[in-house]
Amino acid sequence: MNEESERSQNHTARMARKKAVVDAAIARASEQRGVFLVLTGNGKGKSSSAFGMVARALGHGMTVSVFQFIKGKGDTGEQTFFQRQANLQWEQCGEGFTWETQSRERDIAAAQAGWDKARAALSDPAIHLVILDEMTYLFKYGYLSLEEVLSVIASRPAHQHVVVTGRAAPDALCAAADTVSEIADVKHAFRAGIMAQPGIDL
Amino acid sequence: MNEESERSQNHTARMARKKAVVDAAIARASEQRGVFLVLTGNGKGKSSSAFGMVARALGHGMTVSVFQFIKGKGDTGEQTFFQRQANLQWEQCGEGFTWETQSRERDIAAAQAGWDKARAALSDPAIHLVILDEMTYLFKYGYLSLEEVLSVIASRPAHQHVVVTGRAAPDALCAAADTVSEIADVKHAFRAGIMAQPGIDL
Repeated sequence: MNEESERSQNHTARMARKKAVVDAAIARASEQRGVFLVLTGNGKGKSSSAFGMVARALGHGMTVSVFQFIKGKGDTGEQTFFQRQANLQWEQCGEGFTWETQSRERDIAAAQAGWDKARAALSDPAIHLVILDEMTYLFKYGYLSLEEVLSVIASRPAHQHVVVTGRAAPDALCAAADTVSEIADVKHAFRAGIMAQPGIDL
Repeated sequence: MNEESERSQNHTARMARKKAVVDAAIARASEQRGVFLVLTGNGKGKSSSAFGMVARALGHGMTVSVFQFIKGKGDTGEQTFFQRQANLQWEQCGEGFTWETQSRERDIAAAQAGWDKARAALSDPAIHLVILDEMTYLFKYGYLSLEEVLSVIASRPAHQHVVVTGRAAPDALCAAADTVSEIADVKHAFRAGIMAQPGIDL
């Protein structure tokens, strides 16, 4: 038997064993219900991952509500793109990063107004996916009650998925979530002097 | 001065200092060019983050090419959704995870055919964003030459962005990238017995 054909047979045997393991894991995971995801950490990819799930959900004919709590400039690529899609509600709840407004009162009012709308979505069984983008900052600055948010998320419709993004997610938020990804900033183009790029960062 | 008004003034002063730091960092980051991003790690959010950037780019009127090297089932939400968008090329290059096909020859042929198409996109200045989804597995299994891929990425049009996703990105790939995010799997619903969910995982 030549070397390449031996390598090929070994590959087939190894992959057959791997398939058995993967198939068994898939068989064990049999529950169908809405999941609660937290995407946190300092690296690039938290909000963009949430927007990728929006695209996935729309592809399945699902209905989606997006609440952006911090970025408020209003001319991002994601907003322009998704606002022209069907089955989607897009709410800009903040007036910009909190160091831009510099007003605690205005930030709190914007956070509360956004949360009132998000709470309505989180009790609406017609909505299949709710994105709470950059919500973690509201807990950090004390603009919203974490207990209240957790309670509303816990009592949402059983099939509804929820995604919370933002740095430094509180422990209680991660404890309540089904899936938590921590995105580490190994390297970022911004620190090498490259501006935030349309299509990548905004 | 009452407590809330003092807290508010402190907030304003702290945010003004933060704004100065952020603005200075933004001023230093003045270069405009295509960036090369790697999204790796075992956590949920690598491919979905890439698809979020696709949405962002389309929102800015950019042209996008997506190459999916591993997932080959063809009925994912992202594929259904993005295939009906303008300015987008979507190529399914794999026939499924490599433990599904169990044929090294077929996997290599599919990888090479996909790479031939991706290489064309990586030399086309009309394409603004190229996604090489789950490409890292091809290096792991020896299906593609990392040196060749790095050389083609390095000589792409200057304004073109490239995103590579997949677990266990090789060190040389990360070294060549401008931005690297490592997504840690802190917790995953799948391990708690919840099936892969449409709109979230596929």
